[in-house]
Amino acid sequence: MDHRDFYRGRKVLVTGGLGFIGSNLCRALADLGASVTAVDSLLPDYGGNPFNLDGYEDRVRINIADVRGHGMEYLLRGQDVLFNLAGQVSHIDSMTDPVTDLEINCTSQLRVLEAVRRGNPGLKIVYAGTRQVYGRPRHLPVSEDHILQPVDVNGINKISGESYHLVYHQVYGIRASSLRLTNTYGPRQLIRHNRQGFIGWFIRKAAFGEKIQIFGDGLQKRDFNHVADVVDAFLRAGACDAVDGQAINLGGDEPVALRELADLLLEVAGSGGYELVPFPPERKRIDSGDFHAGITRARALPEGQPRVPLRQGLEETVAYYRRNREHYL
Amino acid sequence: MDHRDFYRGRKVLVTGGLGFIGSNLCRALADLGASVTAVDSLLPDYGGNPFNLDGYEDRVRINIADVRGHGMEYLLRGQDVLFNLAGQVSHIDSMTDPVTDLEINCTSQLRVLEAVRRGNPGLKIVYAGTRQVYGRPRHLPVSEDHILQPVDVNGINKISGESYHLVYHQVYGIRASSLRLTNTYGPRQLIRHNRQGFIGWFIRKAAFGEKIQIFGDGLQKRDFNHVADVVDAFLRAGACDAVDGQAINLGGDEPVALRELADLLLEVAGSGGYELVPFPPERKRIDSGDFHAGITRARALPEGQPRVPLRQGLEETVAYYRRNREHYL
Repeated sequence: MDHRDFYRGRKVLVTGGLGFIGSNLCRALADLGASVTAVDSLLPDYGGNPFNLDGYEDRVRINIADVRGHGMEYLLRGQDVLFNLAGQVSHIDSMTDPVTDLEINCTSQLRVLEAVRRGNPGLKIVYAGTRQVYGRPRHLPVSEDHILQPVDVNGINKISGESYHLVYHQVYGIRASSLRLTNTYGPRQLIRHNRQGFIGWFIRKAAFGEKIQIFGDGLQKRDFNHVADVVDAFLRAGACDAVDGQAINLGGDEPVALRELADLLLEVAGSGGYELVPFPPERKRIDSGDFHAGITRARALPEGQPRVPLRQGLEETVAYYRRNREHYL
Repeated sequence: MDHRDFYRGRKVLVTGGLGFIGSNLCRALADLGASVTAVDSLLPDYGGNPFNLDGYEDRVRINIADVRGHGMEYLLRGQDVLFNLAGQVSHIDSMTDPVTDLEINCTSQLRVLEAVRRGNPGLKIVYAGTRQVYGRPRHLPVSEDHILQPVDVNGINKISGESYHLVYHQVYGIRASSLRLTNTYGPRQLIRHNRQGFIGWFIRKAAFGEKIQIFGDGLQKRDFNHVADVVDAFLRAGACDAVDGQAINLGGDEPVALRELADLLLEVAGSGGYELVPFPPERKRIDSGDFHAGITRARALPEGQPRVPLRQGLEETVAYYRRNREHYL
């Protein structure tokens, strides 16, 4: 069965469903005929945005709730698949308010898993992990068995959140896996502030004719995924039993230096500019340096759609934000 | 300077100070002339026991407090050294009540480190880590760069607790290190129930003429440390700048099969017996198998006292519990 057919008529819950990746996933699931519930807390300064489900209000059930609290027991009951994407994603915020990061990225994960174990142990779960669990790479590309030595509190807590899923698989047979995301870009990302990763911020600057500031020499390389490719990977993992108990890198294409990325963005946008500025010390201390994910394990997933090329993805993304500026700024 | 001289007149705080290792450490510190504060919550079923500081009530300030709450800010002010030993240590309890394990082993560690960063950033910290962060060994002996793949929630949370310390060193220069303990035995350990490791339970059974139950074939090997050697290692680490930012295994002597350990215990105690029984499933699922710590990094510590031989340590421990039975059963 094609993994897209798998979702027709399935009951699917997406935590962080009004966020960047979550909302794109909800839209895709609704298009595939799934019965979708989006859970989101809409915390200020986080990625949740009601406009992200614009046009899908009739096809996605929106439930505002904080995953840290109780109540997930009820929402999880009777679901077939959980895409577990709710999280605190700002690395810089995890250092200024580490306990909140812990509550969202750890406590809530344990509550969800306990609710699953007690109330819906057959549920299929795909968790949104992150490349940040590796810290500063010791070698490139970074495969899944690279040592985990995160450079900030968010990285530590994301290891826990992922590990709980894998231990609940090991101990209780819960059908959970984790996709370790690298830099993801595309429509519906938070671009109001620059504390949730640089890529959305760069896109905003280019789209609206402002100057991009690149920290350091701009030669640091990163890999990128368009959100449509990430959504496709979640759909493939959710329909695939072979991934249960595993953590899998979702690597991007060839790594790109930040300067090259900025050049491409400015060309695509036809506006903006960039300058190199020294790293602010609080950023430098938690910067991971060059990163490029190894993707051997991802080959175990069912085959996906053709990848969105970087230039095309950036073009569409810039156009999206220009079209919907008032909903994102 | 000898590391023991270092403590004369120093202000030292020990969290978990009424617990097994904490109380032995407080007694040693008081003997060395330190000004010692023991912080403990005395939670029921945990290792804290007021009798553990019997005879030292005038020389150790006892402060009952829960490290999960606020209040640590005040207690940490003006201290020179923190031995950070408070923790939830039961692996089996971490599976039945994972959120409590998280609060004690993670939230409280973040609160302590935030209090240190804001109020006493020059404080020297030694954290009590655990061999359980490794999970099931892929090779023996297990050195510190062995992959961390814990088998239960406690192991996951202890990684976080340790990692917070190392990241606070990396990012803020906090002088923190971690000693990864293996099976520790000796006077003042909790022996009322068997959910905090098997060694205290075995000793209790032998000391009081009951039958030891060994799960499985009894051939699984473990390494052991007498608490006096662990205390000595904490004292050495607390006086040594070279360990800052590091996690260091505190390995025992040659690993011993559990059957051999039982034989030795019965011989030493002159009472009791043992039987092999099948693993209860909830234990088997989180059993780590053979374990033996590599101790290369520990050689960076100042030289310690001669180790307590296993037979002698067991003899003294059995005698201690027989002498003080009413305080531990």
